[in-house]
Amino acid sequence: MKKFDDKFLFERISNSIGRQIRNNVLNPGDKLPSIREICRIHAVSMSTAIRAYSELEGKGFIESRPKSGYFVSYTHQKFPSTPKTSNPVSDFGAETTEALIARVYSELGTEDNLLFSLGVPAPELLPISRINKSMVYAMRRMPHSGTSYEKIQGNSELRRQIARGVINWEGELKEEDIVTTAGCMSALTYSISVLAKKGDIIVVESPVYFGILQLARSLGLRVLELATNPVTGMDLDILEKTLKEKTIKLILLVSNFNNPIGSCMPDEHKARAVELAEKYNVPIVEDDLYGDIYFGEYRPRCCKTFDKTGIILWCGSISKTLAPGYRVGWVAPGKFKDQVIRTKLYHSVSSTTPVQGAIAHFLATGRYENHLRKLRNTLHSNSLRYLHAISDSFPEGTRVSRPSGGFLLWVELPKKSNAVKLYETAIKHKISIAPGRMFTLQDQYHNCFRLSYGLVWNETVENSIHLLGKLAKQI
Amino acid sequence: MKKFDDKFLFERISNSIGRQIRNNVLNPGDKLPSIREICRIHAVSMSTAIRAYSELEGKGFIESRPKSGYFVSYTHQKFPSTPKTSNPVSDFGAETTEALIARVYSELGTEDNLLFSLGVPAPELLPISRINKSMVYAMRRMPHSGTSYEKIQGNSELRRQIARGVINWEGELKEEDIVTTAGCMSALTYSISVLAKKGDIIVVESPVYFGILQLARSLGLRVLELATNPVTGMDLDILEKTLKEKTIKLILLVSNFNNPIGSCMPDEHKARAVELAEKYNVPIVEDDLYGDIYFGEYRPRCCKTFDKTGIILWCGSISKTLAPGYRVGWVAPGKFKDQVIRTKLYHSVSSTTPVQGAIAHFLATGRYENHLRKLRNTLHSNSLRYLHAISDSFPEGTRVSRPSGGFLLWVELPKKSNAVKLYETAIKHKISIAPGRMFTLQDQYHNCFRLSYGLVWNETVENSIHLLGKLAKQI
Repeated sequence: MKKFDDKFLFERISNSIGRQIRNNVLNPGDKLPSIREICRIHAVSMSTAIRAYSELEGKGFIESRPKSGYFVSYTHQKFPSTPKTSNPVSDFGAETTEALIARVYSELGTEDNLLFSLGVPAPELLPISRINKSMVYAMRRMPHSGTSYEKIQGNSELRRQIARGVINWEGELKEEDIVTTAGCMSALTYSISVLAKKGDIIVVESPVYFGILQLARSLGLRVLELATNPVTGMDLDILEKTLKEKTIKLILLVSNFNNPIGSCMPDEHKARAVELAEKYNVPIVEDDLYGDIYFGEYRPRCCKTFDKTGIILWCGSISKTLAPGYRVGWVAPGKFKDQVIRTKLYHSVSSTTPVQGAIAHFLATGRYENHLRKLRNTLHSNSLRYLHAISDSFPEGTRVSRPSGGFLLWVELPKKSNAVKLYETAIKHKISIAPGRMFTLQDQYHNCFRLSYGLVWNETVENSIHLLGKLAKQI
Repeated sequence: MKKFDDKFLFERISNSIGRQIRNNVLNPGDKLPSIREICRIHAVSMSTAIRAYSELEGKGFIESRPKSGYFVSYTHQKFPSTPKTSNPVSDFGAETTEALIARVYSELGTEDNLLFSLGVPAPELLPISRINKSMVYAMRRMPHSGTSYEKIQGNSELRRQIARGVINWEGELKEEDIVTTAGCMSALTYSISVLAKKGDIIVVESPVYFGILQLARSLGLRVLELATNPVTGMDLDILEKTLKEKTIKLILLVSNFNNPIGSCMPDEHKARAVELAEKYNVPIVEDDLYGDIYFGEYRPRCCKTFDKTGIILWCGSISKTLAPGYRVGWVAPGKFKDQVIRTKLYHSVSSTTPVQGAIAHFLATGRYENHLRKLRNTLHSNSLRYLHAISDSFPEGTRVSRPSGGFLLWVELPKKSNAVKLYETAIKHKISIAPGRMFTLQDQYHNCFRLSYGLVWNETVENSIHLLGKLAKQI
């Protein structure tokens, strides 16, 4: 798993110091080696050493004190606690979620609102001119400039590039294992449609992305929300109990940097989830939409990594990292491949041709990896800046998730607070958040909300978080 | 409805003579005015008169005899009879259709087969370089080059342009009445999903496009195929009887140039269908995919033209006329708009952004109308050439539809013939046709097949049709 060759020198240094801080090898207030010492220890140039330290400083890990040198930051330890494992009642939820979602969505059209509620990175973080170049390439090189129907299973080169990329999570897929779709939501729609029919029960994490709730309900499915830990994901003991007691048609897991709670299932959990799927013969639809946005050194693995029998339907897309509007996603449906291809054919014939060619080219040229490296750094820094701002301004007793990837924070206000009320007050100040009640069909998460740190960090953003905190104290 | 201003002079002349021939005002063998007389009568130049006559000659209406002038062609009258109204049993069909469809589809990958079986115009007939220009325009002008999520309902400018175009069939729609989709099949999927659930009954024409059968079955619906006339479409008396006796959730009509039978419902039929829909409160999903490819002077109207209560869901796309691979379609869902938008959101968030911008630009600049004019002429000529070739070579007793638009012929071989056998023999000669059995769930249409004239006419095509006819005599 060593990948040092791919990394820049400064990143090796900042990562190793970051690790020492996280592991409490270095403690708040500890003095760090001087720039000059770093140069000597690691045999690097002055500029590399400086870059390593500014990286750590940007993320809030360290701070420089005039004429004294660099120190491990205190603020880093001062972040609020993370939320506890969720505790939904084991019953089917009611239908009141819909109205709230519609209300929050209706504000999205208003351009001048500050959209902490939106689940996408800001356009400024996307490499738009380079994507355009790939689109022009696709128009030049694809048969009939991409105006003809694409293969039903999807563009071959795109599927090859996606298959190539899975080595990052120790996956093993071939071009023919992958079916392209119009974004990850389409991948979920086809996968779920194949596995469950009207009246069937599926299980999901709790809280869960509201789009999944809406999709399931529009297909007439019954949704069981299971307890989920903000660090390690779905409680697998409760999952096993549920699989034993009820007829479940599929398990839907956002395994890496879950939306909205930010959890990332450890390897052992992923392996065990796959074992349970096989033991009870219940497929897992794995929504790995955020897996590429990791802040650690390596990309987290997937349930699919541990799949020996084809029982995992691994879904992904470039919508959260590259071009949401392109609607390019995919699924590796394992043993359900033929059924997924048929459903895709019946529901939409094939996916849009030129965007598939453009993204294939973008992946093939290495531009994607290059872009991801920058995006991850920016979002990691953002996450820490947001945490600082929250920790500075929110009421005592507020808990915040500490995601190791993605771009979403889950904020739990003190028990009595009402996040829908906070939403209503905040929107008057042109600040939009996503209240926790959107992420469940049950009567819970009233004191929670989701906050995206995918916006470009600036003074307005910082002031808005401080204002949010002030408002949270008043409700 | 007069639109003479839009037409070229030569078209006015060729159309009016063509009409006289179709109406038997002029009969086979009749001598036509000389070029010089045409110039005098219509006050046009020599070149315009010649162009009008070559137009008619190209379509097989007239022929020139050396040193004698122009005459109404005999061959025009010699075309085989059209098939009779279909007569499906009023029962739900079995499941054997699927296997045949899969078999015919599996041949599509083989590049060097001559694909009479494919339901799209040849890429050579599409204005690819001009489409590319519109795509480049979209990348330059759209916010963030079209990489961001589009509005859930669809690109505003595209919806405006679609609404503008409905004046061609005396429709009245506004931008906000239209929802864009990923091709027409997606429009049908959303519409049908909103109106009917697992176990419900829907009615369709017979024969019917197999994609509709597959979609309905994948949604768990029961399909009733109703008798359909190759000229006037679904038998509305039988439709009324069915609506009276059974609980029907929706009527699906391919109202203009039906795939595969080529029928085009007359205005009175469309108006009556809408009346029935209202009387029995059963919505019509109108698949108007081929309406723009008309061979007469005017575009046929739609059921939607007569819709006063929003009970018609009018679906269309540019897949059959411009760029199949772009997956740009739409639906004007009438009073079901909110439900259709929600279904679209839940199943796929939004449609691909840049292709919507490109097509909006293509429509706005008038390039689409311009292209359609050429495409219609080419396909009309093609249809007559194909009819000639079939009439020259197929066995006695063969019937062929005489579509007034679209690009599909429905061929009915003599009773005892087996079109699946013809398919199997033909594919050995690298000729692919679509056997009639694909277009029904019932045990019928064994002696029928669908033939696309969307290929570019040349000697190979002509010889292949002759060969098909020879093979048809042998089976």
